[in-house]
Amino acid sequence: MDLNEINALLPFLLRRENVARYEGGEVVMCDRRQYPFEKTFFRCQDVECAARAIEDMVTQGGGPQYVALYAMAMLAGQVANRKAAQQREAFKKANLRLIKTRPTNTSMARHLENAMGVIDQALDQGQDVEAALLDWIEKIRDLSYEKHLKCGEYGASLIEDGDGILTMCFAETSLLMTLAIAKKSGKAMHVFTPETRPYLQGARLTAPSIHEIGVPVQIITDNMPAHVISQGKIQKYFTAADLITLDGHVVNKIGTFQNALAAHHHGVPYFVFTQAADKHKPNRESIEIEARNPDEIKMCRGVPTTSQEIDAYYPAFDITPPNFVAGVITQHGILSPYDLARYFG
Amino acid sequence: MDLNEINALLPFLLRRENVARYEGGEVVMCDRRQYPFEKTFFRCQDVECAARAIEDMVTQGGGPQYVALYAMAMLAGQVANRKAAQQREAFKKANLRLIKTRPTNTSMARHLENAMGVIDQALDQGQDVEAALLDWIEKIRDLSYEKHLKCGEYGASLIEDGDGILTMCFAETSLLMTLAIAKKSGKAMHVFTPETRPYLQGARLTAPSIHEIGVPVQIITDNMPAHVISQGKIQKYFTAADLITLDGHVVNKIGTFQNALAAHHHGVPYFVFTQAADKHKPNRESIEIEARNPDEIKMCRGVPTTSQEIDAYYPAFDITPPNFVAGVITQHGILSPYDLARYFG
Repeated sequence: MDLNEINALLPFLLRRENVARYEGGEVVMCDRRQYPFEKTFFRCQDVECAARAIEDMVTQGGGPQYVALYAMAMLAGQVANRKAAQQREAFKKANLRLIKTRPTNTSMARHLENAMGVIDQALDQGQDVEAALLDWIEKIRDLSYEKHLKCGEYGASLIEDGDGILTMCFAETSLLMTLAIAKKSGKAMHVFTPETRPYLQGARLTAPSIHEIGVPVQIITDNMPAHVISQGKIQKYFTAADLITLDGHVVNKIGTFQNALAAHHHGVPYFVFTQAADKHKPNRESIEIEARNPDEIKMCRGVPTTSQEIDAYYPAFDITPPNFVAGVITQHGILSPYDLARYFG
Repeated sequence: MDLNEINALLPFLLRRENVARYEGGEVVMCDRRQYPFEKTFFRCQDVECAARAIEDMVTQGGGPQYVALYAMAMLAGQVANRKAAQQREAFKKANLRLIKTRPTNTSMARHLENAMGVIDQALDQGQDVEAALLDWIEKIRDLSYEKHLKCGEYGASLIEDGDGILTMCFAETSLLMTLAIAKKSGKAMHVFTPETRPYLQGARLTAPSIHEIGVPVQIITDNMPAHVISQGKIQKYFTAADLITLDGHVVNKIGTFQNALAAHHHGVPYFVFTQAADKHKPNRESIEIEARNPDEIKMCRGVPTTSQEIDAYYPAFDITPPNFVAGVITQHGILSPYDLARYFG
């Protein structure tokens, strides 16, 4: 399969051009806050706008890293006429601003650090920085889609005909690839997606995307996974990860851990997709969990769920220890969570 | 403490007259669908209205049983001039209609069966059926509040100063009594209430009620309990039960089970309040789980959470096996879930 064929297999939200693109000097992304009620695109003309789009969940999951990189390319176009030293300062400031938007997902930070290398090299060699960045971004996107395809093939190999599948939040391209490839090979599946409060990524993004590729899917609320597993309806549990430490701790959207506990209790294996473990995060202690504004817990799609004077608590991610992880699905195969340092260390 | 003092300790929603009352030939209940946004009362002038109020969640938890009993008293007033045989037929029909509203919570069914005994006796002895029913209902409500007070005292004895407490859904009078008594004795506590989708009983009913009696409380979403427990913030987990089988299986709002799994994994004891195990439900196999309309999962306070064409699944309750239950709090004390048959068999 070539990269165009891969893109064609994916649902609307995950097609490369809808996740993020650079167009007419603007960074453009499908607005995931409105989906699936409206298919609208959000456009940014400066770095601050892109940073806020990430913070405000206009884009999420795999989107922010490309939005952030395109924002750097956009900035390169905007500062091209300044002196090199001034340009470097602008890039450095933008880089720090963008990294700050997501303290937990360090993959974006890694890409942004690498972008600084591309920028430095282009400046040193007197090249067009904007063009150099855009060229490099397309290359890493190609590479990423190739890894997704590998993950999809490994993921599909784990699915047996008739499997019930649990997921959480929006596991994006790797999960959708997995389901598309398994379906193509004639396997029947049924997916349960917890709605994933407070932003409802499961209900709004995952379920419509799975439905779009023709796989049966049902939404449940976040208090239901253990019961559905106990009814024998689930044979595999798959999620993505915002971060995996070198010693196999999986950081993902809050709820992933309690589902993994329930799966483990009922003998259902939990598999997690990733493009890489984070070599700068050796263990649980090195993880920083993003605490978001508690007011977001007290709303659902803009409607209040309780009285204004009531307090709330909003940790955005949780940590699943490696003993609950049956396999980490990467381009290198289905790895033990205890063997990641050998590949990514 | 006498019954008036008990009532005064309770928050608005749980005060006897607000749960359900019989007034001017109507059954009146606080509308729990609107709370805490509005404090409105819902009034019924016939049995069908009361049955629908139960089905539509105007009342829930401990409310439906009294709404159903007052509906029988209301019917008695309405049919008093008919022949005894016709009255019996009307009572029988109403009874079946009301029992059908809640297949999982058998406590209401038990009370409705007992009401038929009161009716038969009054008819046989030529007494005023409406008055006989109302007199009997007040007696069983007194008895119930006395049991709640006992449960509250046993519950409060389990709380240590500084405890973090997890609950689920709306554990009503027993939990609120427990917290009020513990607070009165000088213990500090902090409660976390999962919002309890799809009806948000935790966010709308539990959190404002706990806040009202002056105990610190924070709302979390239903995907957070295991993470909050893993952070060491929880020392006790308390819920009510819609049904407990004689062999110690706890049936309660969906989510109770996965919280119990997470509590157990982290060494946090789970205690469940009940007024009685169900002697007609010997074991797990005898439980009927109410399946509600899946469309309710796709809404949050009237706002859609996904596209219309997406399917959903809505089991309303789950089952926690006795090995995850540290104690069943009853008027007889804090019982082992394996010793219920001796008290309730």
